[in-house]
Amino acid sequence: MADIYRESPLKSIGWEDFVGLPLEEKGRYFLRDGRPYHVLIAQQFERPTLERLCETATRTRRIAKTRGGIRFLQDLLFDKRAMLYFAQPSTRTFLSFYSACQIIGIKPAEVRDASTSSEVKGESPEDTVRTFSSYFDMIIMRHPVGGFAERIAWLLSNTERPVPVINAGSGRDQHPTQALLDIYTLLRSFEDKGGMEGKKIAFVGDLARGRTVRSLAYLVALYPGVKQYFVAPEPLQIRGDILQMLDKRGVAYELTRDFERIIPEVDAIYMTRIQDEWDTADESRSIDTTPFHLRVEHLRKLKPTAIIMHPLPRRKEIAPEIDSDPRAMYWRQVRNGMWIRVALILYIFARESEIDRYYEDLIS
Amino acid sequence: MADIYRESPLKSIGWEDFVGLPLEEKGRYFLRDGRPYHVLIAQQFERPTLERLCETATRTRRIAKTRGGIRFLQDLLFDKRAMLYFAQPSTRTFLSFYSACQIIGIKPAEVRDASTSSEVKGESPEDTVRTFSSYFDMIIMRHPVGGFAERIAWLLSNTERPVPVINAGSGRDQHPTQALLDIYTLLRSFEDKGGMEGKKIAFVGDLARGRTVRSLAYLVALYPGVKQYFVAPEPLQIRGDILQMLDKRGVAYELTRDFERIIPEVDAIYMTRIQDEWDTADESRSIDTTPFHLRVEHLRKLKPTAIIMHPLPRRKEIAPEIDSDPRAMYWRQVRNGMWIRVALILYIFARESEIDRYYEDLIS
Amino acid sequence: MADIYRESPLKSIGWEDFVGLPLEEKGRYFLRDGRPYHVLIAQQFERPTLERLCETATRTRRIAKTRGGIRFLQDLLFDKRAMLYFAQPSTRTFLSFYSACQIIGIKPAEVRDASTSSEVKGESPEDTVRTFSSYFDMIIMRHPVGGFAERIAWLLSNTERPVPVINAGSGRDQHPTQALLDIYTLLRSFEDKGGMEGKKIAFVGDLARGRTVRSLAYLVALYPGVKQYFVAPEPLQIRGDILQMLDKRGVAYELTRDFERIIPEVDAIYMTRIQDEWDTADESRSIDTTPFHLRVEHLRKLKPTAIIMHPLPRRKEIAPEIDSDPRAMYWRQVRNGMWIRVALILYIFARESEIDRYYEDLIS
Repeated sequence: MADIYRESPLKSIGWEDFVGLPLEEKGRYFLRDGRPYHVLIAQQFERPTLERLCETATRTRRIAKTRGGIRFLQDLLFDKRAMLYFAQPSTRTFLSFYSACQIIGIKPAEVRDASTSSEVKGESPEDTVRTFSSYFDMIIMRHPVGGFAERIAWLLSNTERPVPVINAGSGRDQHPTQALLDIYTLLRSFEDKGGMEGKKIAFVGDLARGRTVRSLAYLVALYPGVKQYFVAPEPLQIRGDILQMLDKRGVAYELTRDFERIIPEVDAIYMTRIQDEWDTADESRSIDTTPFHLRVEHLRKLKPTAIIMHPLPRRKEIAPEIDSDPRAMYWRQVRNGMWIRVALILYIFARESEIDRYYEDLIS
Repeated sequence: MADIYRESPLKSIGWEDFVGLPLEEKGRYFLRDGRPYHVLIAQQFERPTLERLCETATRTRRIAKTRGGIRFLQDLLFDKRAMLYFAQPSTRTFLSFYSACQIIGIKPAEVRDASTSSEVKGESPEDTVRTFSSYFDMIIMRHPVGGFAERIAWLLSNTERPVPVINAGSGRDQHPTQALLDIYTLLRSFEDKGGMEGKKIAFVGDLARGRTVRSLAYLVALYPGVKQYFVAPEPLQIRGDILQMLDKRGVAYELTRDFERIIPEVDAIYMTRIQDEWDTADESRSIDTTPFHLRVEHLRKLKPTAIIMHPLPRRKEIAPEIDSDPRAMYWRQVRNGMWIRVALILYIFARESEIDRYYEDLIS
Repeated sequence: MADIYRESPLKSIGWEDFVGLPLEEKGRYFLRDGRPYHVLIAQQFERPTLERLCETATRTRRIAKTRGGIRFLQDLLFDKRAMLYFAQPSTRTFLSFYSACQIIGIKPAEVRDASTSSEVKGESPEDTVRTFSSYFDMIIMRHPVGGFAERIAWLLSNTERPVPVINAGSGRDQHPTQALLDIYTLLRSFEDKGGMEGKKIAFVGDLARGRTVRSLAYLVALYPGVKQYFVAPEPLQIRGDILQMLDKRGVAYELTRDFERIIPEVDAIYMTRIQDEWDTADESRSIDTTPFHLRVEHLRKLKPTAIIMHPLPRRKEIAPEIDSDPRAMYWRQVRNGMWIRVALILYIFARESEIDRYYEDLIS
């Protein structure tokens, strides 16, 4: 295990040089021995890693079905302790990571205040997080300042005691483990339906500001045979940078406001909430978003094999009556999130091959 | 263990039909295989279950006296994780459940905020708690809205992944595990004094609004030979629904304002605090409650075998000097609360017979 | 283990008599079997105990370098549960204790609110903490009221269920485990440099109000060959009671405002932050404290063997560029804090000899 504490590529580059790199080029700085060490941006993942993570997640949840399997899992990383630092509130993501740690024996500790007591005493945010790294073997953090998790990863890599940093949401842009759980849900759902190839996926709602869709569009684009639909009122439509990325990768896509027309066509509908917490002048109020709600009457138009996703929390985008439809996947998404995070942490600490060994004994 | 996740009777009844049932008829919907699965109201318990729980609690605390016993207990439910969701603050009950989980190896997680971050983002309370059920094997919850825990139990029973729900206090009415610890304290204290039969128990203070007394009066009424005294200023006297229940069960009781007269007569005094947080117009201020305080000079009038209880926190109802009197039971009540919750959780997960096996080896 | 729950010397003395004792005479009341049971004031430690603690800390961190060692440590106190009650916010000290508990298998629980819910309901602070003692095997507490931790230790010693109390900072005066980690850092740093004998240590900054320096000056004074420098602007200079203590012990010291002159002379510089949270009328603002900052250009004047310490959090007293200088010890101080707390808790529960046994096997 000791080797994961060795030199990080982040040690070989200055902060100013690093921060100016395009997203696609940053990823290799977060690796160690060809596996993710820091997990900071969705763009750091390529297909082989994604698929390995999904396989590990599925095997782990199978193992967790017996008391013996749970005991095996709790022993995998009993020797690690993790800091969950959530400077921005998030019950769902917080508990998902907390549970993931418990499942594989990691002892968690938490700071969930918007401002720590040290910040009150005038400490810099960098010093605050460096303190966490002194006590724990891993930092899982959510922070309102975009890029702050990257800053910390770089800074810790240049100390005597670096630890892995997982970004659990930062600023407006990045929430890489949400993107992982979404792609896991897609891959898992399409497993018996011919895989991702040729599928049509619609993103609906606030596509301008939801970091979820922005990250997921990138990961879906790793599967070039998939067509993406962006369904939103004009002011909330997906930004140009994402479209450029899709163009560059030769991915088919379509922008539209006509949700009704799209429903019967697609294999997955990814609903999102209006992110009015980012409003600067109450602009969301002036937009009629009801045409972008999924209603019970839509269900009969939707393909029988299609799936409905939502990162949650939801408001009125999806009527609660839809929850019991077998195509509704959003509650399973929540569980998928816990398991993909388990897989990710095992992978960071180079323990995923022990899952394989136990799993092969199990099925043989 | 898997069988506890099977069908719940709550799945067979609509919410509107269920919620209209009298308390006494609701209990059977919370059972699974003849044992409590959800724990929501004091009225769901009958004497055999109460006595089995008390026996399990007493055996468990005996087992916990050695390192070997503690190791055995921590292994019983090492494979479970519990969510403690306290939307209403409560240090004592929270820590009691938290400790209970730790003792039997359950890994706890907590949300102690009045409002979760998701609620801030417009999520319904039902969705919030359903998220918890996705990650954890049990939900222990306190909520300001009366009946909310029942609502959640019903709702989860109608999903693919129901988990047991324990009500740790909801609204003005129910706090069933407080009633359990109180009855445990009574049974334990009277064990060497001929049992409950023929005992006289006085409830003193704010009987109108304290949910503790309302629940306990019900459980004490399962022992028909016990006479109950309700000692309170008129506006805070016990409500008619409790008296009707006692009448129906043929239980003897007396209402009085004369605390002094009652003190030498009774075998147990259950003191309570004025619950002025429920005041709508500062009405508690206009009531002189000092005649309902237990003072040091009362002690010589009290039977040598009598006991003094209080659910805590206390204000001035009991002078701190009384704490060192051997009849003062309220600090033991606190510990009893932890152990009866241990027993309850073991019972929910069908592990209480392992306590018996270990205990029999211990005493043989 | 049971013996640690036996009679405490605190049971033999009334509160009024105890509280009036000089600090040096209080210490013996916190012992049990010649070892600390309660840890409340820096003055309770003598050199043999300090050195034993430091040795245990160093051995423990060596043991923790392997998975097998971590497993051994987690088994030492798996049977204990600790309450961390931080009525005053403190991220660093809180997490240090939390981690220390996890390392040796103690299950922690926490209350980090300024006011507990029970206090809101009118409960006395004494009752609140007594409740904690009902559930847990140890209380680690920080409280804004000076002497409150002592009050609790005395009070619990006079109940049927005393538990050890560790003061994690109380009022303006005491923070004994900070003093322990500071002395540990000094002893460890001077180990290869001839030990403490003959060393010169400068305390710089707000010496009037920082409890850290006041406690550490006492422990350093146990090493009579060490000269102490107090470097501060006049209004923030060290108080007379500390100087009297030094005089009594025959310890050499010097008071000065001339930081520049002192830098090349000393073997250790202990920097501190201006504690303006204690200001009553913004008085810190009128003092120019910049002459008491350590700047990059000072480094070349500092002895190559000297060390730089700081209890953290820092503001501008030390430029971040200094962090990478090998003489900067403040980040190691943070880790030392965790390990000395591990050692302390092991010592309280009489488990330090098991460290010795494991360690001797390790090195043989």
